[in-house]
Amino acid sequence: MSAPARLVARSRPKTGERLALSAATAQGVHIATSEVPRWLERVRRCAGATVRRIPFAALDHWSFAPDTGDLRHRSGRFFTIEGLHVMRPGAQWQQPIIVQPEIGILGILAKEFDGVLHFLMQAKMEPGNPNLVQLSPTVQATRSNYTKAHGGAAVTYLEHFVEPDRQRVLTDVLQSEHGAWFYRKRNRNMIVETDGDVPAGDAFRWLTLGQIAELLRLDNVVNMDARTVLASAPAAAAEPRALSCDAGLLAWFTAERARQDVSVHRMPLREVAGWQADERSIGRADGRFFRVVAVSVEGAGREVAGWTQPIIEPVERGIVGFAHRVFDGVPHVLVHARVEGGFLDTAELAPTVQCAPANYPPSDPGPRPPFLDLMLDAPGDRIRYSAVHSEEGGRFVDAESRYLIVDTDEASTPTQPPPGYHWVTPGQLNWLAGHSRYVNVQARTLLAVLSTGAAGRTGRAA
Amino acid sequence: MSAPARLVARSRPKTGERLALSAATAQGVHIATSEVPRWLERVRRCAGATVRRIPFAALDHWSFAPDTGDLRHRSGRFFTIEGLHVMRPGAQWQQPIIVQPEIGILGILAKEFDGVLHFLMQAKMEPGNPNLVQLSPTVQATRSNYTKAHGGAAVTYLEHFVEPDRQRVLTDVLQSEHGAWFYRKRNRNMIVETDGDVPAGDAFRWLTLGQIAELLRLDNVVNMDARTVLASAPAAAAEPRALSCDAGLLAWFTAERARQDVSVHRMPLREVAGWQADERSIGRADGRFFRVVAVSVEGAGREVAGWTQPIIEPVERGIVGFAHRVFDGVPHVLVHARVEGGFLDTAELAPTVQCAPANYPPSDPGPRPPFLDLMLDAPGDRIRYSAVHSEEGGRFVDAESRYLIVDTDEASTPTQPPPGYHWVTPGQLNWLAGHSRYVNVQARTLLAVLSTGAAGRTGRAA
Repeated sequence: MSAPARLVARSRPKTGERLALSAATAQGVHIATSEVPRWLERVRRCAGATVRRIPFAALDHWSFAPDTGDLRHRSGRFFTIEGLHVMRPGAQWQQPIIVQPEIGILGILAKEFDGVLHFLMQAKMEPGNPNLVQLSPTVQATRSNYTKAHGGAAVTYLEHFVEPDRQRVLTDVLQSEHGAWFYRKRNRNMIVETDGDVPAGDAFRWLTLGQIAELLRLDNVVNMDARTVLASAPAAAAEPRALSCDAGLLAWFTAERARQDVSVHRMPLREVAGWQADERSIGRADGRFFRVVAVSVEGAGREVAGWTQPIIEPVERGIVGFAHRVFDGVPHVLVHARVEGGFLDTAELAPTVQCAPANYPPSDPGPRPPFLDLMLDAPGDRIRYSAVHSEEGGRFVDAESRYLIVDTDEASTPTQPPPGYHWVTPGQLNWLAGHSRYVNVQARTLLAVLSTGAAGRTGRAA
Repeated sequence: MSAPARLVARSRPKTGERLALSAATAQGVHIATSEVPRWLERVRRCAGATVRRIPFAALDHWSFAPDTGDLRHRSGRFFTIEGLHVMRPGAQWQQPIIVQPEIGILGILAKEFDGVLHFLMQAKMEPGNPNLVQLSPTVQATRSNYTKAHGGAAVTYLEHFVEPDRQRVLTDVLQSEHGAWFYRKRNRNMIVETDGDVPAGDAFRWLTLGQIAELLRLDNVVNMDARTVLASAPAAAAEPRALSCDAGLLAWFTAERARQDVSVHRMPLREVAGWQADERSIGRADGRFFRVVAVSVEGAGREVAGWTQPIIEPVERGIVGFAHRVFDGVPHVLVHARVEGGFLDTAELAPTVQCAPANYPPSDPGPRPPFLDLMLDAPGDRIRYSAVHSEEGGRFVDAESRYLIVDTDEASTPTQPPPGYHWVTPGQLNWLAGHSRYVNVQARTLLAVLSTGAAGRTGRAA
């Protein structure tokens, strides 16, 4: 017996087309793209926030637990900084790590104006941003945020994301964050469409994807949370052909995951070997990788007037890049199945290169990361995309990387890449980014660049 | 510049059609379906294996670690039985759990005969199977197996799965196993096609999916490993319409995962509260759920001549069932976003009902699992599918469940189901089973039944 019911098409083919139209629309209805940096500057001045490094002892309500040495908030909420022991065949290390089990919402509200999707972007101050204020999603809320653990104001527009009409959800997927700094952190990456009358507050502007693409070409304008949400959106019509079929790509990745032996144990921060604490930082004796420091934020027009918090500070600027080739008219990028200690499941797909070159000085006799020099030495005419972006400013301070997409050739990046690497099309990467834990956060920044067209159109149309 | 290269179509549309043809082929070229149970019986007699419960002290090379009480093999390999502490809002418990971090291969070799795909199935003895010998994948190998940790013979046909031609891989996906008994266990579920000349050994037969479907209607013939691999195969042309679109389904599941607070810690087995050990078993004081016991296997024609091992024994037969409805001509089943302590990521999609009814006696004042009585009391003419299957016989002894697919109606299972439940089409479930950790192992057994047509054709054609 068949019950009457309203069925819907399983796929919404128009979503990709509507996003493509938005990406092709260079002018929005709300603000000129060229005005956006000036608007961000106004918000920056208006907020008047100052961020100072402080000694750990000056943290309010944060302290080192007497038994473990873990750095925690008095309320038991927000996050903690603990220790992690990572063991792999032939390598093992210990390090501090941020533990924040709760799942936050990174949500962008979308709405059609004149038939074109616009996205409500926020000018948001984060203490770790090098320029404090960047373009962020409509909503960026930890669960502590929206359950008011810090007694702040309600998160504006949050109601669109907490119980959305599922037929208006363009994407909603749990994505990992930095596996080198976070223990198994993930956030919901959401885009929800509305046709209601949504007034844009002072700190918000409606932008097309084309406008955001143009802003992605600038340094430190589009924040990490916005980049990862945009990468999670279904892209326009994907290439029907690729160097390997989708099933072959999954088979390769399954084999990569299966061959990794990674054993990870949390441990007390105070017992972490190779790291030492002073009044103002916890860092490695050899000065590599990152430090844990403390900051004080004052005069910020945020949910609360001012606060102090621990934060992670990388020691040097990173480099994150995709090798890019066009095979028989179809663009491909070279992904790396990369193990990070904080990943929930061993490996995720990462850019071709992802490291801080300063950690590999020429004097270091150890092996250099594959393809690093290809990125460092790329001639200008092979660079399709280059911009500096910082990582999440709520947990990382001055965590900048140069993001690159570089044209390469058979000699430097062969059609049959070395083990652990695989050529994928942007469409294949976008398909996988529709599910959890395939594409790491750095690769998602570059995917956002590819999907919005910020690196220019490639392939036959180029 | 575009480099010449051989591109392939990203999707292999014929795979689904070829599997559908195999499912529609009731007779194979190698053995009549009716002969299969007799063949399994011959292998059973020939193996002449006997399995006896033994005291823990009679285990060879297995012992309780002096410090933790964990049950381990002298070599440090195979698996251990440790303790697990699971905390959720309003509930927390401790239990023994099997820890086996290495990823095994469950692989089925496929080959066309007379233009129809056949699958090389093995008659395999496992000590926990109620009838010892069942139909299993071509290869069922832990990494200890194929690195010869127990000094046995090489695993036959393994070479087809270790470094397969990726263009011949029909499926290769990491799937979870029982989250109530295993800590984050996953195996590779692989189907690899060959066109080589592959002789079928005495313990192997080539079968069509149609033949396997008929055998799935029998009790305890197709083992769990075979069922989960078959569920992971791409199904034939899926329904284009459903009660919710694919993006809406993912949004629902993301919200389900995000709302779960599950905190899990491994702990020493000897400290697990509520469980007590005697010479022959570790069980709960109230007799519920399962016991850890030890068995001795003798006279088996397996990789090694005989062995002893710990094994998990559920106290009662389980019931596992999908509520099934046809909406506007399209069949749907009601999935449950179920939390199990051993899952890597909080919840997976489970059948409508999955429990051991004996754990919920009528005298128990606590809440009964939703829809349980709907399954227990289903009239015969509403039962689309019913068979008893046992779980993996290498780790679980006499772990039988009745698997059901039951036609239900609006009164018992409304179109708008309660929180935590969602209507999906078999095609949607199959789509998700192509990725890791969406569909739990019990739901995959029922998905194999749906995909192969073992429950009969449903929907408009019915």
